[in-house]
Amino acid sequence: MRTVSDIGERGLIKLAYEIYKEHDESVDLTDDCSVIPLGNEYILASSDMISEKTHIPGGMTPWQIGWFVTSVNLSDIAAKGGSPLGVLLSFGLPRSYPELSFLDVIKGASSCATKFDTSIIGGDTKEHEYLVISGTALGKVKQDCFMSRRGAQPGDVVVVTGHLGKAAIGFHLLKEGIKTSSVNALCEPIPRVFEGMILAETKKVHCCMDISDGLSSSLYQLSELNNVGFEIERESLPLSSELQHFSKKDSSLDMFHLGLHYGGDYELLFTTDKESIPLLRESLDQFKTPLRVIGNVTVEKDIVLRTGLERQEPLLNQGYEHFSN
Amino acid sequence: MRTVSDIGERGLIKLAYEIYKEHDESVDLTDDCSVIPLGNEYILASSDMISEKTHIPGGMTPWQIGWFVTSVNLSDIAAKGGSPLGVLLSFGLPRSYPELSFLDVIKGASSCATKFDTSIIGGDTKEHEYLVISGTALGKVKQDCFMSRRGAQPGDVVVVTGHLGKAAIGFHLLKEGIKTSSVNALCEPIPRVFEGMILAETKKVHCCMDISDGLSSSLYQLSELNNVGFEIERESLPLSSELQHFSKKDSSLDMFHLGLHYGGDYELLFTTDKESIPLLRESLDQFKTPLRVIGNVTVEKDIVLRTGLERQEPLLNQGYEHFSN
Repeated sequence: MRTVSDIGERGLIKLAYEIYKEHDESVDLTDDCSVIPLGNEYILASSDMISEKTHIPGGMTPWQIGWFVTSVNLSDIAAKGGSPLGVLLSFGLPRSYPELSFLDVIKGASSCATKFDTSIIGGDTKEHEYLVISGTALGKVKQDCFMSRRGAQPGDVVVVTGHLGKAAIGFHLLKEGIKTSSVNALCEPIPRVFEGMILAETKKVHCCMDISDGLSSSLYQLSELNNVGFEIERESLPLSSELQHFSKKDSSLDMFHLGLHYGGDYELLFTTDKESIPLLRESLDQFKTPLRVIGNVTVEKDIVLRTGLERQEPLLNQGYEHFSN
Repeated sequence: MRTVSDIGERGLIKLAYEIYKEHDESVDLTDDCSVIPLGNEYILASSDMISEKTHIPGGMTPWQIGWFVTSVNLSDIAAKGGSPLGVLLSFGLPRSYPELSFLDVIKGASSCATKFDTSIIGGDTKEHEYLVISGTALGKVKQDCFMSRRGAQPGDVVVVTGHLGKAAIGFHLLKEGIKTSSVNALCEPIPRVFEGMILAETKKVHCCMDISDGLSSSLYQLSELNNVGFEIERESLPLSSELQHFSKKDSSLDMFHLGLHYGGDYELLFTTDKESIPLLRESLDQFKTPLRVIGNVTVEKDIVLRTGLERQEPLLNQGYEHFSN
């Protein structure tokens, strides 16, 4: 008998998608974020579930857990260029869960929502064997500003916000008990909500998604959806300075591998025409958020990693997937 | 150290509410359904989480679990008079969960959504130790049709749709292995989505909620929110025929107790002026959904149960609450 671990997360989503589509052709599960047309806007809705057992690193405080679940839900709204309308949080709590920890989770969640000009507006509270939190972020975006996952064109440049590998090195340092800004980046990620809204308003972004499952995984998803390939320049990757620093000290850490494949960086990955880069950079000046061109969109569907002028190799999909063996 | 089991579900919601309100005064957790103004409409969003361990009766099939979680989420939209915009379902699944069961859950969920003219439009899939499903239903309603939990006025009549105690007797019969329509009512509840939309359009409903936690619990919530009391006529309660039938055969079953306090009936409870009853009844003719006047709204905040002309006693709050000891 086949079980969910034989199928993997993306396989399960595909199976569900086929059944949902039989009932409603317009349903589209190729995106983490659902899109509902209403007037000249889209209502955006995205759910993410986390649990103590499988998704919360051991050293995370209750306050950080609240921030984290709110943040990862808002990131899906950010990737569409949406302005948040509110977040619902449903809690599954063990009977023995301390009141003070519960309050800290709520405070962390509220602080994150406030930071991004929104609120926790509802949810549910149920009894569970261990801590589970399911969030749903709601947002809205003008239809003509909406950033889809579809729209990459051969010749486009591939761009990423911020830095890569912060969460990867943060996870390593958290385990080692070393507190740095990367540990904060892992436990209190900053979704690119304001950047997403501004990028969307320029109408110059051809397609966009966040890289929560890792850069390589995201490139594979965009490749499949857009029927294009990517040529990524290894030396252009904006690896985080802490990742570079600690990789030099510890030879077991491969900074390029971690920057390319490790998830947890809630940065935006998008494609645009080369000529729009100065305008897009300027639009994000107010946030001091860097944009880095890391490669090109190609007609051939291969995804390749170029190192210098001569060498290139296939860039494999080594991002995280739930249930995969 | 106080834990969540010392506080109870409603206590936890109150604690969270206080913190959320510090961040945003407009947040209102007195309703299971969140309300976001947009143009001349409200966007409605409501989350409900269920799990194999605590909320799914043993005999429920995977198809029914899918129907159930979709249905209970839609019920909160129904109570506002909203038309559904879509449902998001997030799954926590054990690695050993059978593929066929997963597909059946998806099919049940899709069938329920289709029945109420909506779709499953997204969600999440994660690994868990046991089955957890968190749903979020979205809806919309014109602001001038919206049915709030606030608005009950002394002199109003109290009305309930359909019948009471179907889920209660269904749960009893499911345990006994007897299959009847009440078992279906428990496992495949019918949210009053279409009825809610039509009732809202009459603009005659003063306040409304569903009675998923039991009639007495719902009356206590409305009493607190509206600063009024209720006088309920025991002989007017529309007890389900199966509840009456099986209670006569089994003296351990108290049909009035089950009808008043047991949850799981996704009926609507509302108040209105007496003169509007014929219009409201007529509006639901098309669905053959009965409306029963079960009592009155009173100035005094007490909630009393009248039996015949002479006898009356306090109607206690004996509905279901998570974590309560």
